[in-house]
Amino acid sequence: MEWQKGELIYEGKAKRVYSVQGSPDYCWLEYKDSLTAFNAQKKGSFEGKGLINSEIATLIFRFLKRRGIPSHWVAKVSPVEMVCERVKIIPLEVVIRNRIAGSTAKKLGWEEGREIPSPLVEFYLKDDALGDPFLSDDQALLVGAVQDRQTLDSLRQQALKINGALREMFSTIGLDLVDFKLEFGMNSKGNLLLADEISPDSCRLWDQQTGEKMDKDRFRRDLGRVEESYREVLQRLKTRWGDQL
Amino acid sequence: MEWQKGELIYEGKAKRVYSVQGSPDYCWLEYKDSLTAFNAQKKGSFEGKGLINSEIATLIFRFLKRRGIPSHWVAKVSPVEMVCERVKIIPLEVVIRNRIAGSTAKKLGWEEGREIPSPLVEFYLKDDALGDPFLSDDQALLVGAVQDRQTLDSLRQQALKINGALREMFSTIGLDLVDFKLEFGMNSKGNLLLADEISPDSCRLWDQQTGEKMDKDRFRRDLGRVEESYREVLQRLKTRWGDQL
Repeated sequence: MEWQKGELIYEGKAKRVYSVQGSPDYCWLEYKDSLTAFNAQKKGSFEGKGLINSEIATLIFRFLKRRGIPSHWVAKVSPVEMVCERVKIIPLEVVIRNRIAGSTAKKLGWEEGREIPSPLVEFYLKDDALGDPFLSDDQALLVGAVQDRQTLDSLRQQALKINGALREMFSTIGLDLVDFKLEFGMNSKGNLLLADEISPDSCRLWDQQTGEKMDKDRFRRDLGRVEESYREVLQRLKTRWGDQL
Repeated sequence: MEWQKGELIYEGKAKRVYSVQGSPDYCWLEYKDSLTAFNAQKKGSFEGKGLINSEIATLIFRFLKRRGIPSHWVAKVSPVEMVCERVKIIPLEVVIRNRIAGSTAKKLGWEEGREIPSPLVEFYLKDDALGDPFLSDDQALLVGAVQDRQTLDSLRQQALKINGALREMFSTIGLDLVDFKLEFGMNSKGNLLLADEISPDSCRLWDQQTGEKMDKDRFRRDLGRVEESYREVLQRLKTRWGDQL
């Protein structure tokens, strides 16, 4: 199928969303080179970042598809662009944690890296003005982020399934999936699909040998070698999985 | 039974806890005149505050007992003192909300006073050093605040039952129970009991006619007439319920 890029619908922090001409159920995502952190208070970029994240996300969505996990991803249309199913995004950031890190380490007073016996799924309201507050299930229902408890259960189940698959995938390239953020949406048929992207922007990935951080924490915490780390993640994924997906 | 005050076990922000001589399953609570807010960063007091809270808590615990809701309360031993069953406190603050107010109004970006269709139960970790962080059920289990999900369910059920009873009680004296905080503990027989206190320190109470705040928010927000409001709550409770409990 030949896809035709339509007009700009929305510009986010890391991506531009376009329509697809003649296909209202699809959208066209263009990855940008920008990097933001702390609710966009910290801004940066490097050349090729959009390409790297687009390629990583593509490999991951393909891998998940093989594992029977549906996502909005449909096709790669350029090195920095993909066509996806158009979904109505559920305004929750679904965070899965295998180890304690970042704000949760501070909140609980635990040291970073402590393993969590069974992975934790958390919901944060997608609302920049409010600073994406952490919500209980009851609060998520109260604010109308989802319509019913079943949807929260589905999100949780799907998140854990994705976590299982991705831990395995990253483990094959020597990376420990510490935690990551997912977004989901409903397509026009009412199916719940994994959406947005999965990349070093949305995951904490630690090298299993050296413990080195290979993700956006390098940018957040000014650790240097941001670009090199993102490239390294893509390189390892391509070497191991490029031919098979 | 004649109770004998033993030695000081623990001094909290609003109460001193003593042992009871010869009765290891009981403790002796002495209410102080101090008032604290914002994790004890703001401090105050007024004479008679301990007495007022002790009398309010006594009336409430008696009312709840009539409704079949067990608490640690055993007997009044002086105007500012009560004997209670000794419990191992569960390190969770259980908050019940009938309307949005305070920090939750800020967190969700909602105006204060908005009614919640079905009451919200929330868990906060009792940990001053961490600022009592808000926890999901999974997090409460992870940090070991409770041993199992059933205990969380029991806390939630018991909190809703208490909410039903107290809304009714306060409604008879023209007060709207906006939200409140409960603590629970296990006694030596392994029974889950309502513990700590219920008073204008731990509840938001709004006059149903005037909307006036009759609780610790008067102190928190420097609204004046703190003492008068606490006294008024006790007076109304005594007038309506003093003879019957």
